[in-house]
Amino acid sequence: MDTLIELVSKDMAAVEVLLKERSTSAVATIPDMSGYLISAGGKRLRPLITLAAAYAAGGEGSNPLHCLATAVEFIHTATLLHDDVVDESDLRRGKKAAKMVWGNSASILVGDFLFARAFTLMVETRSIRILDILSNASCVIAEGEVKQLAAIGRADLPISEYMEIVEAKTAALFEAAARAGALTVVTEGAESDGLAEYGRRLGRAFQLVDDALDYDGTTSVIGKSVGDDFREGKLTLPVLLARQNGDATERAFWDRAMDVSKQTEADLDIAIDYIRKADSVNATLNAARDEIASAKAALSVLPPSPYVDALSDIADFVVDRAF
Amino acid sequence: MDTLIELVSKDMAAVEVLLKERSTSAVATIPDMSGYLISAGGKRLRPLITLAAAYAAGGEGSNPLHCLATAVEFIHTATLLHDDVVDESDLRRGKKAAKMVWGNSASILVGDFLFARAFTLMVETRSIRILDILSNASCVIAEGEVKQLAAIGRADLPISEYMEIVEAKTAALFEAAARAGALTVVTEGAESDGLAEYGRRLGRAFQLVDDALDYDGTTSVIGKSVGDDFREGKLTLPVLLARQNGDATERAFWDRAMDVSKQTEADLDIAIDYIRKADSVNATLNAARDEIASAKAALSVLPPSPYVDALSDIADFVVDRAF
Repeated sequence: MDTLIELVSKDMAAVEVLLKERSTSAVATIPDMSGYLISAGGKRLRPLITLAAAYAAGGEGSNPLHCLATAVEFIHTATLLHDDVVDESDLRRGKKAAKMVWGNSASILVGDFLFARAFTLMVETRSIRILDILSNASCVIAEGEVKQLAAIGRADLPISEYMEIVEAKTAALFEAAARAGALTVVTEGAESDGLAEYGRRLGRAFQLVDDALDYDGTTSVIGKSVGDDFREGKLTLPVLLARQNGDATERAFWDRAMDVSKQTEADLDIAIDYIRKADSVNATLNAARDEIASAKAALSVLPPSPYVDALSDIADFVVDRAF
Repeated sequence: MDTLIELVSKDMAAVEVLLKERSTSAVATIPDMSGYLISAGGKRLRPLITLAAAYAAGGEGSNPLHCLATAVEFIHTATLLHDDVVDESDLRRGKKAAKMVWGNSASILVGDFLFARAFTLMVETRSIRILDILSNASCVIAEGEVKQLAAIGRADLPISEYMEIVEAKTAALFEAAARAGALTVVTEGAESDGLAEYGRRLGRAFQLVDDALDYDGTTSVIGKSVGDDFREGKLTLPVLLARQNGDATERAFWDRAMDVSKQTEADLDIAIDYIRKADSVNATLNAARDEIASAKAALSVLPPSPYVDALSDIADFVVDRAF
């Protein structure tokens, strides 16, 4: 990760300026909340990938690219603000969730502001193709979030539907970021498709790791409370695999406990036991590793460069942070 | 209003098709909620103005115009969904607010979806200028909503700040709709500026009337509960004028009662009495009439046409619905 940060440090500095500049407003809540989230130890993974994709496609830093990378981070930040309200989580990136400080209403409305700001930045790229990609990705993300909401408590959620949710709510933005980054430099073709596939696979891996850590991480590593997904009745791969491999007693446990209205305090410990027994955190991490292998393979269509190497390294980092 | 509906009936039919088509999704909650709101007796005022602005500028119906008008209605609908969560209002357009049926989380996320969908529709116009106008308007709207939230309970809110909120949260979309409608036909100039000013003034009038009706309407006319603004501690012109013209006792009442944590059941009746005594609902409606006069005056730069006449009639309708 450090290599990539170094390779695009000038561009990242420009993005940081835009992140700050475009979240200013005479209405103090907006820069206050944006600053709180944006400075809260985010890894800037999505803008980094946007920038690296442009370089990997043979280009270099440009104002449209910086606007695009900033827009991608704003879309991500807006999503976080709304997710926190929907998920009822109290921690985010190791700090109190913004809604715990400013309230749900401000989280909703400042999220809307950042989302709108993302669009003004994309318009500044003057590229209809880029606007097309990012506006469609925004639809897919919101659709995935609604789908996830509808799946709450459904212990019998098919794994294919879970993966559709992951693809939409998480992978779509990584994919769009990488493709649009490339398209600031090249036209549609093998290179932009390869980078898009890289982003998509990386996004899937990222979410799988996130879902694994919810049952096997520590608050200091994941920046949020262990068991949040469980307490929200959110079905993720560690649970779906444990239920699939479990006996009748375990299945009955999952069917009851994932319905939050029937969940008790003691259930999280039982859930973690069953998940350990099924080894389904490891199975989830292995699925993430497969995605990472596919992500790296997708880079093979690109001419060798330090940027391609750095993107490959980042892919490893996404899984490695789990250990 | 009927004249205009007749004049642009073919275009409005195309917009209705787009409204339905673009709120479809395999995730059932999305068409269900969208359909609930979009079919719930909305007057389609904003898309009507978008369409009429194009005709008033000498153009006619086109696919980009229909996409734009649909996008404007989606932005409005997304705002309603989020407003309902923020405002804690239980009624909307005479029906239960969507969040009372589907919950707050779905309202937030389906609002996000419709907002994203609005952007995909705007991208279909292929016009960077239109994208620029609407994305900036979206920022201004969200900024106005945050500003309104920060003003909750501030009984000493200056009237100028109240008007800034009205301008941002309501007038900006009417202004952008009219300007962008014109720009599907003409380039920037006196005509698009005149139509934009018309939209802005109409939007200001629209909000003033809405704020007046909250204290002097009936649920059947306004489609929501009387006194909602009061119960939320939202400072609007009827209150600001009553407080400004009130004696020390009245001022003390407003300073206490607009703080929702100190408000009692009996306070709404007292508030309405004070507002009647100050005649501030009428003063608010008169302010709306002034805006309507300015809106009509702004149309004078346009060549006479049935569309200009219909826009002028709509302006009267906005205030007349108060009686």
